[in-house]
Amino acid sequence: MPLTKIGREKMECIPECRPELVTDLYQLTMAASYLEQNMSAPATFSLFIRAYPSNRNFFVAAGVEELLGFLENFRFQKEDLDYLDTLGIFKPEFLDYLGNMKFTGQVRAMPEGTIFFKDEPVLEVTAPIIEAQLVETLVINMINLSTMVATKAARCVNAARGRRLVDFALRRTQGIDAGLKVARSSFLAGFIGTSNVLAGKIYGIPVFGTMAHSYITSFPSEIEAFRAFAETFPQNTVLLVDTFDPIAGTKHAVKVAKELAEKGNQLRGVRLDSGDLVELSIKVREILDENGLRDVQIFASGGFDEFKIADVLNRGAKIDAFGVGTKMGVSADAPYFDMAYKLVQYDGRPVMKLSTGKVTYVGAKQVFRFFDPDGFIDHDTLGLKGENYPSAQTLLQTFMVSGKRVREPDDLQAVKMRFEKEFKRLPQQLKTLDAEKKLRVEISEELEKLQQEVKQQIIEKELGEG
Amino acid sequence: MPLTKIGREKMECIPECRPELVTDLYQLTMAASYLEQNMSAPATFSLFIRAYPSNRNFFVAAGVEELLGFLENFRFQKEDLDYLDTLGIFKPEFLDYLGNMKFTGQVRAMPEGTIFFKDEPVLEVTAPIIEAQLVETLVINMINLSTMVATKAARCVNAARGRRLVDFALRRTQGIDAGLKVARSSFLAGFIGTSNVLAGKIYGIPVFGTMAHSYITSFPSEIEAFRAFAETFPQNTVLLVDTFDPIAGTKHAVKVAKELAEKGNQLRGVRLDSGDLVELSIKVREILDENGLRDVQIFASGGFDEFKIADVLNRGAKIDAFGVGTKMGVSADAPYFDMAYKLVQYDGRPVMKLSTGKVTYVGAKQVFRFFDPDGFIDHDTLGLKGENYPSAQTLLQTFMVSGKRVREPDDLQAVKMRFEKEFKRLPQQLKTLDAEKKLRVEISEELEKLQQEVKQQIIEKELGEG
Repeated sequence: MPLTKIGREKMECIPECRPELVTDLYQLTMAASYLEQNMSAPATFSLFIRAYPSNRNFFVAAGVEELLGFLENFRFQKEDLDYLDTLGIFKPEFLDYLGNMKFTGQVRAMPEGTIFFKDEPVLEVTAPIIEAQLVETLVINMINLSTMVATKAARCVNAARGRRLVDFALRRTQGIDAGLKVARSSFLAGFIGTSNVLAGKIYGIPVFGTMAHSYITSFPSEIEAFRAFAETFPQNTVLLVDTFDPIAGTKHAVKVAKELAEKGNQLRGVRLDSGDLVELSIKVREILDENGLRDVQIFASGGFDEFKIADVLNRGAKIDAFGVGTKMGVSADAPYFDMAYKLVQYDGRPVMKLSTGKVTYVGAKQVFRFFDPDGFIDHDTLGLKGENYPSAQTLLQTFMVSGKRVREPDDLQAVKMRFEKEFKRLPQQLKTLDAEKKLRVEISEELEKLQQEVKQQIIEKELGEG
Repeated sequence: MPLTKIGREKMECIPECRPELVTDLYQLTMAASYLEQNMSAPATFSLFIRAYPSNRNFFVAAGVEELLGFLENFRFQKEDLDYLDTLGIFKPEFLDYLGNMKFTGQVRAMPEGTIFFKDEPVLEVTAPIIEAQLVETLVINMINLSTMVATKAARCVNAARGRRLVDFALRRTQGIDAGLKVARSSFLAGFIGTSNVLAGKIYGIPVFGTMAHSYITSFPSEIEAFRAFAETFPQNTVLLVDTFDPIAGTKHAVKVAKELAEKGNQLRGVRLDSGDLVELSIKVREILDENGLRDVQIFASGGFDEFKIADVLNRGAKIDAFGVGTKMGVSADAPYFDMAYKLVQYDGRPVMKLSTGKVTYVGAKQVFRFFDPDGFIDHDTLGLKGENYPSAQTLLQTFMVSGKRVREPDDLQAVKMRFEKEFKRLPQQLKTLDAEKKLRVEISEELEKLQQEVKQQIIEKELGEG
C-alpha cells in the first residue's frame, strides 16, 4: 500500500475543528491589546522542552507537517467572530481585524524524525506578534503530543531489538485525534503498523488485527471459533489462544493449523494476551515446534511498553511481535512534556522573563550538531541563528515563509527512514531505558553573552538594581 | 451565556472523522467472520473499569451523550468501503453488508455525572453481534477519556474547598479532541470555566483568560504592558505579576489599579504563575490589602493538581482561584483507566473468558445503590438486569433503543448539577486524596450463582475437567 503525503489529509479530517479557535482566550485578549497599541512588528517565539521527564534523555521531533497544514488554513470564520462577539469583551475593530487575518509568518523547524534535546528549539515562529501569539496553543498542542509519542515509541522499538511492533493503543488513547497521532508517530519511530483503521486510511499505514476474546466466547467452543475464523481468512489467521487456557488453546490452534495445511494454507500465528508471557511463550513455542509449526509466529499483547518488552526478552521470552497499546499511546510514565513556546525577540529586541526556575534563551536560534569520528552525535551547540559552524549539522530548517510552505511535505516513509538513520547516530549509552546519561548541549559564546546582557538590562530596568 | 445541548454539536465538529473507522482492524475481521457464520443474534457487552488506578476510589461517569451522537451516525461511506477493499482481505459480500449497516442496538448507561465504582458497568450495549462488536473501540475511547478527566477534575474541585477552578489544559492535552473533552468534563465536575475558546463555542462553557508572559516581555517595560492592557480591557483586567519579580510586579499592579480607579474601573485580579505560591500569595495579599485593594483577587497557576492545591491551601496560601492545566488535563498520575468492553451474553447464553487475572461478570446487569439513613452511599450491589431491590436506586438507564435515543440529550448545566448533588452523597472518607478506603460493592446472589455455573461449564467443556 502506498504511503500517502500527510498534513493536508489530517487537516481535512477535522475541518470544523478549524485551527483558529483551538486557542486559549488570553491569546485573543493579548491580540486585541496589541492591535490597539499598533504593535505589529515581527516577534520570534521558540518552542522547546524545559526539562527531561522521567526516563528520557532524547526527544524525537514529530508533528510539524500536520501543524503546517493547519497554519495554512488559519482563518477566522463568520461564526467564530459571531461567537467571540457574544463574549462582550471585544471591540468591532478587533473582530474585523480577525476576519481579515491569516498566518503570514515564517516557520523554522527540525524535520520530523530528528532527535533533539532539552532547551533546543524544535521549532521557531517569526511573524507579526498578533499572528505568532494566536497560534501558540495550537503549536504546542500539536508538536507536544506527536513528539511525546514518537519518543515513547522509539524507546519501545529500541527495547524490542528487532522484533516487530504494532500500535494497539486506539481504544485508550486520550481521544480520537490522539489515536491518529499515536498511529502516525509510532509508525515514524519504527512500528510496522497499527490496529487503527482510520489511521490506515488517512496515512496509508499498514493495518493489523484478527480477533478478540469476545469472538471466541461468542461461539459454543474455542475450537469452533478458531475453525470459523480460518474459514473466513485462510491466509490471514492469527489465533488468540488464551481465552480459557493458553496451553489448551495452543493445542486447538495446532489442530486448526493442520486442517489449514490440508487445504494448502498456513496458520500465521498465535496471540497471547495474559499470564506470564515468558513461561507461556516458551511453552507455546515448544508445542508449535513439536508439531512442525516452526513458521507460526508468536504474537504477544497486554500492558507492553519499553520496560516490559525489555524484561520479557531478557528473561528469554519467545515472542516474534508485540502489540503495544495503552502505555505507549498515552506515554504513561511521562504523559506530558514540559514544552513551552516563549517570546524570545520582538521588533529586533531580544527578550526574556526571569520567573523562578524557568530559563528561556533569547533571540532567534539555531541548533548545531557535532559528530564524533565514528559518526555518533558528540554534542550539540545552541547558538544564535546567524552563527556559523562549518563542521556542524544545522537542525532548524525553513518550512514556511510568508505563510506558505517552502518545502514539499515529507512523505511519511521518508520520515521513518530519516528517524531510523538518525537513531543509529545516537550513542549507545544514551539508549538505556533509565536514560541516566544525558547528551552535552553547549550554549554558544555569542548566545551566552547576549543572554547575560539582556538579563542585566532587565534587572536594571525592572528591579532597580545595577 | 446559555449552555447548549451537547452531543450533536461535538459530533458535527469532526464530521470527516466519522465514527465508523474509529476502530481496530480486528473488529472488522471478526465482523466478516460473524457474517459468514450467519451469526446475527443479539450480544450484550459490558463496559467497566477493572481496577482502581493509583489514588482513585470512585469514578465520575462522562461521555455518553457524545457517544450517542456518534452511534446515531454510524454509517460506512463509499470511501470507507473503497479503502477497506484495498486491504485485499474482505469479500464483496461483507463490504456490501457494511454499506447497508447502521447501529440498531440498545444502550443502557449511567447518566453523566453519576459516581460509580470498580467492576460496575457504566454502560451496556445490546445489539446484533456485528454492530455491538464494531463499536467497541469507539465506546471505550470516548467513555474512558471523559470519565478519567471528570474523575480527576472532581478530585481537584474537592481539594479546592470552594475556591474557583478554571481549565487551562488545552496546550498540553493529548490532542485537540482531548482538549475539548477536558474542558467539558472538568466543567461538569465543578470547574467554573475554561481557557479553551473552541470549547466555549461548542459547549457554551464560560471562557477565561487575560495575558501571558510574552505579552509583558513584548513591551519595553512591565508597567507599560500593564497600562496597555488596562486600556483595552478596563473592566476585565487580571495582571500577570511574576514575569520579572512578583513583588515588584504587584507594586506595578497596585499603581495600575489606582489609575483604573481614577476612571471608575476596578482591577479584577493579579495572577502568580511561578515560585513559592504560599509565601508569595500571602505577601501579595498584604500588599494589595495595604493599598485598599481587598477586592482584587489572587489567581494562581502553574503545575496545579489536587495534591498541589491541597498542599498550598493547607499551608495558608491566599489564593482565590486556580488555573488548573496539564496535570488535570492528562490525568497525570493515572493517564489511563483499565476500562474494558466485554462480551457477557450472546444469543441468550451468558459468556465469560477465564484469562489470568481478569474477571468479567456474565450477563446483562444492573447496579443497585443503597444509602444510609443520612443519605450517604452505603454500598452498591452488582446484580443481573432483571433483579429488583425496592429500596435501591438503579444506576443504569436506557438511553437508546433500536439505534434511536429515547431520552432528550442532557443539558450540560443539568449534568453539572447532577454531579454536584451526587458528590454530596459520597461519604467523606471516600474523598481523601490517597483514596485508601474503598466503597463496598457486593455481588448479588443471583449473579454470583450464574457466574459460578458458567465458569464450571467452561472448565468442563474447554479444559476437560469436571
